[in-house]
Amino acid sequence: MFSSTSGIIELLGTIAFAISGTFSAMQRKLDAFGVLIIAFVTSIGGGTIRDLLIGDVPVAWMRDVQVCLVILATSVAGIIFKTYIRKLKVTLFLFDSLGLGLFTVVGLQKGINFGLNPGICIALGTITGCFGGITRDILLNTIPLIFRREIYATVCIFGGLVYFLLLHLEVNVDICKFIVIALIFVTRIIVVQKNLSLPKINY
Amino acid sequence: MFSSTSGIIELLGTIAFAISGTFSAMQRKLDAFGVLIIAFVTSIGGGTIRDLLIGDVPVAWMRDVQVCLVILATSVAGIIFKTYIRKLKVTLFLFDSLGLGLFTVVGLQKGINFGLNPGICIALGTITGCFGGITRDILLNTIPLIFRREIYATVCIFGGLVYFLLLHLEVNVDICKFIVIALIFVTRIIVVQKNLSLPKINY
Amino acid sequence: MFSSTSGIIELLGTIAFAISGTFSAMQRKLDAFGVLIIAFVTSIGGGTIRDLLIGDVPVAWMRDVQVCLVILATSVAGIIFKTYIRKLKVTLFLFDSLGLGLFTVVGLQKGINFGLNPGICIALGTITGCFGGITRDILLNTIPLIFRREIYATVCIFGGLVYFLLLHLEVNVDICKFIVIALIFVTRIIVVQKNLSLPKINY
Repeated sequence: MFSSTSGIIELLGTIAFAISGTFSAMQRKLDAFGVLIIAFVTSIGGGTIRDLLIGDVPVAWMRDVQVCLVILATSVAGIIFKTYIRKLKVTLFLFDSLGLGLFTVVGLQKGINFGLNPGICIALGTITGCFGGITRDILLNTIPLIFRREIYATVCIFGGLVYFLLLHLEVNVDICKFIVIALIFVTRIIVVQKNLSLPKINY
Repeated sequence: MFSSTSGIIELLGTIAFAISGTFSAMQRKLDAFGVLIIAFVTSIGGGTIRDLLIGDVPVAWMRDVQVCLVILATSVAGIIFKTYIRKLKVTLFLFDSLGLGLFTVVGLQKGINFGLNPGICIALGTITGCFGGITRDILLNTIPLIFRREIYATVCIFGGLVYFLLLHLEVNVDICKFIVIALIFVTRIIVVQKNLSLPKINY
Repeated sequence: MFSSTSGIIELLGTIAFAISGTFSAMQRKLDAFGVLIIAFVTSIGGGTIRDLLIGDVPVAWMRDVQVCLVILATSVAGIIFKTYIRKLKVTLFLFDSLGLGLFTVVGLQKGINFGLNPGICIALGTITGCFGGITRDILLNTIPLIFRREIYATVCIFGGLVYFLLLHLEVNVDICKFIVIALIFVTRIIVVQKNLSLPKINY
């Protein structure tokens, strides 16, 4: 799986989300097994839902044990090196944002490869990027950030629109991917730092 | 999708649940994006689970962008016209009951088309009718009504039994559909108004 | 479905989990319909997720109505005979442990039949064994025991490793199954009784 550009993006996304899951679970003081489970769920959650919805089964991680080994290794490394990391919450947030960018692009491209409508591809990208984090938050009993101020998913949708715009302008596909990953990563950090939010509907 | 009788029933069900989702989310004061997400989930949730279980993938809304556009338009219209609706809670409840009837029949018929056992068809109808609302309630952190007094799902099962009875009596299939939709709609309203419930098991 | 050794194991697992679901739901004083729903979800939850992930759809219980009838009969019997059972909590726990052993083996073997990697087979066994109970606990608003002290899933993984070891030693497959079922059943009871737990990661 990890040979092409897509493969490298998926590998990096898997690692980023495994770290974000590991640190979230350690923050909540779960036992070793719980930490591994949360790392797995965060890392494979989005891709699993995506593969189920489009019918690409057995789902990705079942066909490729390497993914599981990468998550296991990342999570164990995270547990070991945790004492060297001062600002756990900031580190967690950065890796989560990076994973969001990487996995959104993976989902977008998979939708395109399956010949789906651009709108559906953007939905698939958003699901791939967001779902692992949502499931993690539900399991850890945190209120899913997606329904709070962060406009998590809006960033993915925005990234998806830019991706199709760039493809339409016939930019090289690998460059498109890189731009959109960076865009989602940076936008999310700015949004959270500036505490931006979508307007509430007054009722 | 929207050309046959089945298509029209599915269209109306999609609209009814999109309205119920939009109003529920506005009641909980979610932001514009959150309202759209809840409208989507309520509208496509039941059909998605049904399609996954029977293996009809990619799931319906991925193959037909019209469904997504209808939900989007309905939700935006709901947001705009909300000020004209006095009794939000009653309106929400009526549309939810209507969607329940419509989608139960969609699920029943899909099970029949897949050649499944009548019992399984009734389960599919119930899942199609109830699951969107359950997911909406979980996401909005309301206690799913299905596990409370409303006997939500019992109404769907009852409707399913009547559907097979009518088909067995060789009533025209479109008339069967209309009767069962009306039956579920009316029964649910009566059940909620009269505050009926199934007997609790004394333990 | 219930003719081979695998079939008998699946039948017994279905019954064991249906009882555990019925008793859990009665403990929380749900109405008759709620009890049936929880019995179903506990009994078919794990297998449904397993079948969705590997793409064996329509999922098992949709293809075989007997499963549904067995659950229905078990649940009704459980409701009727509840007054004869003094120690509901102990009975519930024993049947839950038995179901865990039985369904883990069912999932393991299904993974092997699909030609999947041993690691993935163990994951499938664990999912088949644990998921019904997790969903039951979520629906009943109990904190899923898997994330607490019980090391629920660890027992399944341990059982899976022993299963592959025994198969590797060319032990007869039916004997392997029996040993692993007994092993998971006994290990779980010991673990819970002795109040053992995995080490927490100090952070």
